[in-house]
Amino acid sequence: MGKIIFNGEIKNRADVSVDIEDRGYQFGDGVYEVIRVYNGELFAGDMHLNRLMDSARLIQMKVPFTVAEIETRVKELISEDQLQDGIIYMQLTRGVSPRTHAFPSSDVEPVFVAYTKEMPYTGKMKSGVKGITTDDIRWLRCNIKSLNLLGNIMAKQMAAEAGCDEAIQHRDGLVTEGSSSNVSIVVNGTLRTHPASNLILNGITRQVMLKLCADHGIPYVEEAFTIEDMMAAEEVLYTSTSVEVTPIINIDGQTIATGAPGPVTKRLQQLFSAEIERQCGSIN
Amino acid sequence: MGKIIFNGEIKNRADVSVDIEDRGYQFGDGVYEVIRVYNGELFAGDMHLNRLMDSARLIQMKVPFTVAEIETRVKELISEDQLQDGIIYMQLTRGVSPRTHAFPSSDVEPVFVAYTKEMPYTGKMKSGVKGITTDDIRWLRCNIKSLNLLGNIMAKQMAAEAGCDEAIQHRDGLVTEGSSSNVSIVVNGTLRTHPASNLILNGITRQVMLKLCADHGIPYVEEAFTIEDMMAAEEVLYTSTSVEVTPIINIDGQTIATGAPGPVTKRLQQLFSAEIERQCGSIN
Repeated sequence: MGKIIFNGEIKNRADVSVDIEDRGYQFGDGVYEVIRVYNGELFAGDMHLNRLMDSARLIQMKVPFTVAEIETRVKELISEDQLQDGIIYMQLTRGVSPRTHAFPSSDVEPVFVAYTKEMPYTGKMKSGVKGITTDDIRWLRCNIKSLNLLGNIMAKQMAAEAGCDEAIQHRDGLVTEGSSSNVSIVVNGTLRTHPASNLILNGITRQVMLKLCADHGIPYVEEAFTIEDMMAAEEVLYTSTSVEVTPIINIDGQTIATGAPGPVTKRLQQLFSAEIERQCGSIN
Repeated sequence: MGKIIFNGEIKNRADVSVDIEDRGYQFGDGVYEVIRVYNGELFAGDMHLNRLMDSARLIQMKVPFTVAEIETRVKELISEDQLQDGIIYMQLTRGVSPRTHAFPSSDVEPVFVAYTKEMPYTGKMKSGVKGITTDDIRWLRCNIKSLNLLGNIMAKQMAAEAGCDEAIQHRDGLVTEGSSSNVSIVVNGTLRTHPASNLILNGITRQVMLKLCADHGIPYVEEAFTIEDMMAAEEVLYTSTSVEVTPIINIDGQTIATGAPGPVTKRLQQLFSAEIERQCGSIN
């Protein structure tokens, strides 16, 4: 730990700070990614880095490096920090410029920051967590992984205050996604999850999971479901870089099905662990 | 210029920077205000500072000072910077804490920053500007003056690229507000503007204008209007701390009415100037 990539250079964490007129600070004008590291190896690194490029493009922000360049630098950071199991957090803002809403001139350079954080693999996500439901009050470009996260953090805080792990957001009763995850349900053995539209972030773990479904004959549909569908489902699960594939066994105080992780979730957890091992080597 | 209030102390601009794990930088987790200064005096300072408190409360953020305390400090800053005509920009974020969505523990102190910028009073906003219309893609808590401004800056950028001054946002054809302003129209001599709901920021200039209408017998209604209503209106105007009361004389390439500022707009400009003089003394 203790190192940081700041605009292409690896520096000591303590030596890095940002200007108050960084547009990330005044407008949330930037995008980010969180990449999981197992055994010192990036998991789905190329998917995350390509999404960073996509997010930047969607807010018309130039990216001062290629995917290959940033991947090389991130691997150096992992090595410097001797990170085994954890995450890389990275964000790119539109740069430092006197505050005005419209974009600054094209000679303003974006600001890139990346650092690691330990997150040992514990497998504790097997047994399941509790959730709450809440209105989705966010903007209509949730497909962009931007730094405008106030709606998300307010939802997560609501969950935390209720003693729960995740807030499941809905628009007029139709479930969109969690505050930092995608949510899926199982009905008649078929996995169902919100389509990748402007209303959700198309999670990398979600994409990996759907690929695993396709490859292993687990039926799935990308179709929105209601809160009622969810409460009556055989299984509810949520996915993200941090929680991988985790059952949600209680929502708004009501037990989902038997309250135990279901067979589809367990199967997906096995397949996901196998995918991690395939990409990053053996995990405990 | 060159001074800055940073967490209660007045410092040199060059000595101030923020941590990358300031929640303002990673989540846009903060609120802000822009206060106009004429003749070295705050215009509607108490209204702005009270709104800062309201915005903070709406995102459950503690404020480490009273309105009176921050007003005193801001006046010191104006004096230090010898600011005559310009603005004070101020923002308050939830503070520096290892990145996690839910709020940090209550011992994490908010970070406050305020600085001045010259903006001479020119009266150039008399003749009118051009606007465009665009979808309002923002979240459903636009009543909070938060740092989550990506929707606003993308709209403003669209206007700038079209050679216009403001983007007029609408939800399904119903006009909400500008990207950094409120929008009003005049129909049959009556001023009409979107009600102060969760879909707009209740601008201080908007509030001052409506008070002036009430005090001087200018009829007005707080009622949403459609794009069609606007295009056919006798007058269109927009209001903000920066533009005061300014006519919009062309929208999406179409001239509004005669293309000249209308009588209600001109009357409001006179009344607004008189209000500035009442609060801040004579302006040129």
